[in-house]
Amino acid sequence: MRRSSALVCALAALLSSPAVLADPPPAGPAAIVTAAPAADWATFDANDLLVMDLAGGRRVVIALAPDFAPAHVANIRALARAHWYDGLSVERVQDDYVTQWGDPDGKKPLPPELPQKLAPEYDRPAAGLAFTPLPYRDTYADQTGAAGAFPAAESGGAAWAVHCYGSVGVGRDLNPDTGTSAELYAVIGQSPRGLDRNIAVVGRVLSGVDILASLPRGTADMGFYADAGQRIAIVQERLAADLPANDRPSYQYLKPSSASYAAWIAAKAHRQDTFFLRAPGAVDVCNAIPPVRPTPR
Amino acid sequence: MRRSSALVCALAALLSSPAVLADPPPAGPAAIVTAAPAADWATFDANDLLVMDLAGGRRVVIALAPDFAPAHVANIRALARAHWYDGLSVERVQDDYVTQWGDPDGKKPLPPELPQKLAPEYDRPAAGLAFTPLPYRDTYADQTGAAGAFPAAESGGAAWAVHCYGSVGVGRDLNPDTGTSAELYAVIGQSPRGLDRNIAVVGRVLSGVDILASLPRGTADMGFYADAGQRIAIVQERLAADLPANDRPSYQYLKPSSASYAAWIAAKAHRQDTFFLRAPGAVDVCNAIPPVRPTPR
Repeated sequence: MRRSSALVCALAALLSSPAVLADPPPAGPAAIVTAAPAADWATFDANDLLVMDLAGGRRVVIALAPDFAPAHVANIRALARAHWYDGLSVERVQDDYVTQWGDPDGKKPLPPELPQKLAPEYDRPAAGLAFTPLPYRDTYADQTGAAGAFPAAESGGAAWAVHCYGSVGVGRDLNPDTGTSAELYAVIGQSPRGLDRNIAVVGRVLSGVDILASLPRGTADMGFYADAGQRIAIVQERLAADLPANDRPSYQYLKPSSASYAAWIAAKAHRQDTFFLRAPGAVDVCNAIPPVRPTPR
Repeated sequence: MRRSSALVCALAALLSSPAVLADPPPAGPAAIVTAAPAADWATFDANDLLVMDLAGGRRVVIALAPDFAPAHVANIRALARAHWYDGLSVERVQDDYVTQWGDPDGKKPLPPELPQKLAPEYDRPAAGLAFTPLPYRDTYADQTGAAGAFPAAESGGAAWAVHCYGSVGVGRDLNPDTGTSAELYAVIGQSPRGLDRNIAVVGRVLSGVDILASLPRGTADMGFYADAGQRIAIVQERLAADLPANDRPSYQYLKPSSASYAAWIAAKAHRQDTFFLRAPGAVDVCNAIPPVRPTPR
């Protein structure tokens, strides 16, 4: 009875107080993204979307990051257009680290017309990059934030794409010029920030990271599948631009320069949802990755 | 020919230089852990290990953290001893967030002799906690580091266990005193640091987080399984102390106060492996979780 009375009193107070009604609690992060106007979204170019179809009808869509690794992205586009990835496989799933795909036997020659080696693209000049900084400190970099759809960092005039959950990089051997884009990986665990500036980050999974992250873990060294029969075949890997219109995915990201993105970050840092007793007061770079959505039709 | 000559010259220089041979490169992080002496390891108490056996012979071992959530840990021990968890299930797998297990229908009454509600244990006084700080800044806390086997943080005299990959917390409803330990979750993605100090962290998965992280994602709201048939049954959930000796797991963690732990952190921050061109210069709290190993026999 006491609880019912209290509820009635609270409702009465609410109804008699125009100030309360006119000043609702701040919207939570998800609601801000849902309400973001069309102008706050940017559509990915269809030449920047890599679509990997795995056996079993499982599709992974990756946004490429030419602002950070232009030569590697050009090579990936050329390999996709040559259908070079088709028939290769997911060969490595290491828990809390990466899922990797490519040529498990390392025997498939690259198309002779493509570069057989690529110079490192592990960072770039910060100058000229459209970078929206976060107002919070980072363990590793002078400054973190977002550049286009990608989590990014800056230190001492250099900028780079950061390794977060879903980030896609180019596997390589010890020699830094051995990464050709033939082997790609996606992060499926805690952000391995120690890899930043040591590997070319070429993009970010937009859709299907749950597919890559829920695959059985490999039991051989470094999470490679011990048995070739465990590998998951890549049926085809194409640029969205090269797929038929009725099978071509399209995605948008919330522009980091938009008011909605700023409001989203502020709501995450200072959230006043009913669940949260203590707002964190900050957001780290890997929890600030620009939201994406399928392009509304 | 030029490359061969260069290699020969390098080898000759190496062989003629005792200083190089006597001063090998610093050991990498993994080698430091492998070489850590027995005195640098601490063995978990068998009453602090929660062993969850899932259908299909899949075992998950969790270290409980009584230093951070003593009432919740006491409740978990009591629920395990009452066999209360047996027959419940993994009911929720949300990608890049959590795997949760408990009573999906919320209908199983708690044993009447146990508290039906628990007061929040979201942080504790920093005083009295054996805490080894990291010398690097954090986005959220004044100070991060490790306390026992657990990633931890301190700010303004309070300390708490941090949400990292593998951290185990107590699910609750909006009301902060609704977390009874009947619903537990493990983090399977980027560290959701915004949950810190809003939920009771009660432990850390020592073995089998790969099992929890590779389960199929749920398709209902918040990653709950839409179909009850997708749930994974909990065959039994016991304290290691209550298992027969021949089925009782035992684990050790590298003591944060040890020289080996300090060397491990330093090697991660300043690593000079052949692969790494640029040492990160720092290690964040979720990449500094004390290593564990099965207790050597």
